[in-house]
Amino acid sequence: MEITHIEHIGIAVKSIEEHLPYYEGVLGLKCYNIETVEDQKVKTAFFKVGQTKIELLEPTDETSTVAKFIEKRGEGIHHIAYATNNVNEALAEAEAKGIKLIDNQGRPGAEGLTIGFLHPKFTGGVLTEFCER
Amino acid sequence: MEITHIEHIGIAVKSIEEHLPYYEGVLGLKCYNIETVEDQKVKTAFFKVGQTKIELLEPTDETSTVAKFIEKRGEGIHHIAYATNNVNEALAEAEAKGIKLIDNQGRPGAEGLTIGFLHPKFTGGVLTEFCER
Repeated sequence: MEITHIEHIGIAVKSIEEHLPYYEGVLGLKCYNIETVEDQKVKTAFFKVGQTKIELLEPTDETSTVAKFIEKRGEGIHHIAYATNNVNEALAEAEAKGIKLIDNQGRPGAEGLTIGFLHPKFTGGVLTEFCER
Repeated sequence: MEITHIEHIGIAVKSIEEHLPYYEGVLGLKCYNIETVEDQKVKTAFFKVGQTKIELLEPTDETSTVAKFIEKRGEGIHHIAYATNNVNEALAEAEAKGIKLIDNQGRPGAEGLTIGFLHPKFTGGVLTEFCER
């Protein structure tokens, strides 16, 4: 597979609004998009930092996997997303090399990307996403 | 402050060697540097991904803060490091805006960078580092 850059870093928060003063007021980043991903039961807020985005993830429902993450581990870094040119090929290659997948096929994510996740038990505890524009 | 990009993402691991097959063999990244930072009691391994580096952190001593992180939370994403042009100014600005600092002044980090950390209780649970080359 060819990974070109870190597409985004996902950060689980209880409330996006509560964290805007830190990301905008302290770090000086600009939130350019807020979008709800129904499928994942999250509201997302995006900030661009060079090639990479910070993606804040606020659960919209207590059954959201992000809500469960926060309940178990508290707010904090949730996942890393790598940009690839072909998510399905990257997922298949990872699986062929022994990595258990969460998504066998790419599916729609925020910002019009096609995304797919690897299982963190097979990636050193790091929830890992592949993204394709 | 001016943040230009994500300098690196730090990932806590029990053993760098154990995770090389994933980062090199599966993701196709290349480890270009392994370095011990005595001060922080960690061995570090670096992989370049676009503008950003993945930094694996292996504790060299059980009193290392990375060893304590792994004991408490397991292996996984440890911190985000933002590239700035002036760490001391960035730390002072964050403190003036109410963020508690771990480092009041920049100090030497891996790869010849000057680094300083913010307290995760003030940054939504995200251990946050500023870096200056």
